[in-house]
Amino acid sequence: MELVDFFPMLEEIPKPEKEALERALSRRRVPAGTVLHSGMTGCTGLLLVVSGQLRAYIVSPEGREITLYRLFDRDICLLSASCMLHSLQFDITVEAQTPSEVWVVPADVYQKAAKSSAALANYTNEIMASRFSEVMWDVEQILWKSMDKRLAGFLLEEAALEGSDTLRLTHEKIANHLGTAREVVTRVLRLLQEEGLVRVSRGEIAITDEKRLRELSEA
Amino acid sequence: MELVDFFPMLEEIPKPEKEALERALSRRRVPAGTVLHSGMTGCTGLLLVVSGQLRAYIVSPEGREITLYRLFDRDICLLSASCMLHSLQFDITVEAQTPSEVWVVPADVYQKAAKSSAALANYTNEIMASRFSEVMWDVEQILWKSMDKRLAGFLLEEAALEGSDTLRLTHEKIANHLGTAREVVTRVLRLLQEEGLVRVSRGEIAITDEKRLRELSEA
Repeated sequence: MELVDFFPMLEEIPKPEKEALERALSRRRVPAGTVLHSGMTGCTGLLLVVSGQLRAYIVSPEGREITLYRLFDRDICLLSASCMLHSLQFDITVEAQTPSEVWVVPADVYQKAAKSSAALANYTNEIMASRFSEVMWDVEQILWKSMDKRLAGFLLEEAALEGSDTLRLTHEKIANHLGTAREVVTRVLRLLQEEGLVRVSRGEIAITDEKRLRELSEA
Repeated sequence: MELVDFFPMLEEIPKPEKEALERALSRRRVPAGTVLHSGMTGCTGLLLVVSGQLRAYIVSPEGREITLYRLFDRDICLLSASCMLHSLQFDITVEAQTPSEVWVVPADVYQKAAKSSAALANYTNEIMASRFSEVMWDVEQILWKSMDKRLAGFLLEEAALEGSDTLRLTHEKIANHLGTAREVVTRVLRLLQEEGLVRVSRGEIAITDEKRLRELSEA
């Protein structure tokens, strides 16, 4: 993979800034569970996902988490370079969900390139709009959907990502995705099991009726 | 007020695009309650608030509302020009809360100017980051704060905006700001009244103990 795979307008950036971007790039391979960025780590820079999966989430004062979005191959995490944007006033945490390869672009080098290139600045806008849209989708889910529907949707999404109907997921992990308490997840899973949609066993959740689970999630 | 009051980098935009912006500007004075933009109205363009107050909100399939943010003098509403950004995949409604004067910049003219000016494109980024931050603040309120604290915060915000401790607000209106049901607002207001923080009468809510209301909202 090359930088142009992340920034299709790369050739429109003036040469000195383009070369500075290429020079400044650092490459990291990290195991699952690595925190790549948090409010504590300061300005990490842009994260370009070469392979693997990242999860961006926020944490409540009591330590409860909720997933904002996930990033896959060719995705760009902009919010880990929040120092670049004075108006960006919130902290996210970015964690590798699987072993991942990421490239890091320092915020100051990127900012300089965006100052010299309207094409790159407009592209940055598109990236932000895309993350904003994902968060708005979350907001609508949280506000208007009951937990059983959200959990059904989450299990289907996980199954698609894993390519398997049997998911190795703790109730705690699911709770941290959905921004709720572990007890709530356990209760709703029991409900879905009683209705024959899933089968819950130690450390595993098997989808037993995908069709009805989908109907529930879309209801 | 002039265009440069909204776009401090106006002089950096190439002359043809700058003049096109100035020519394309349309000025509107609207009474309170006017819907300036919604998913149905298509691409309204950027809304520049000269005076008054706008409210941006989303609506659930069942017609329930929640306020995302409010806009005042010199604020710019970007999301009403969502057609400009392919990645912006959600609909908001923008409504005048008070009699307002707004200037409208057509999305295509703005987009052309941003293509020709990195300064404007980067500024657009800041506007979006600022709205994104407001929505993230909402998300944290919705997720981690109980309704009594959110309601306390909302009443204090309204009092500051109105410059009065006595607010003419229906329970329905408050519910539409906070994304909840009218019955919930009525119940929580009764609770706050029992604790001596507010006094509720027909069509009015009076803040009777601002200090304790603030303590509650910040708890």
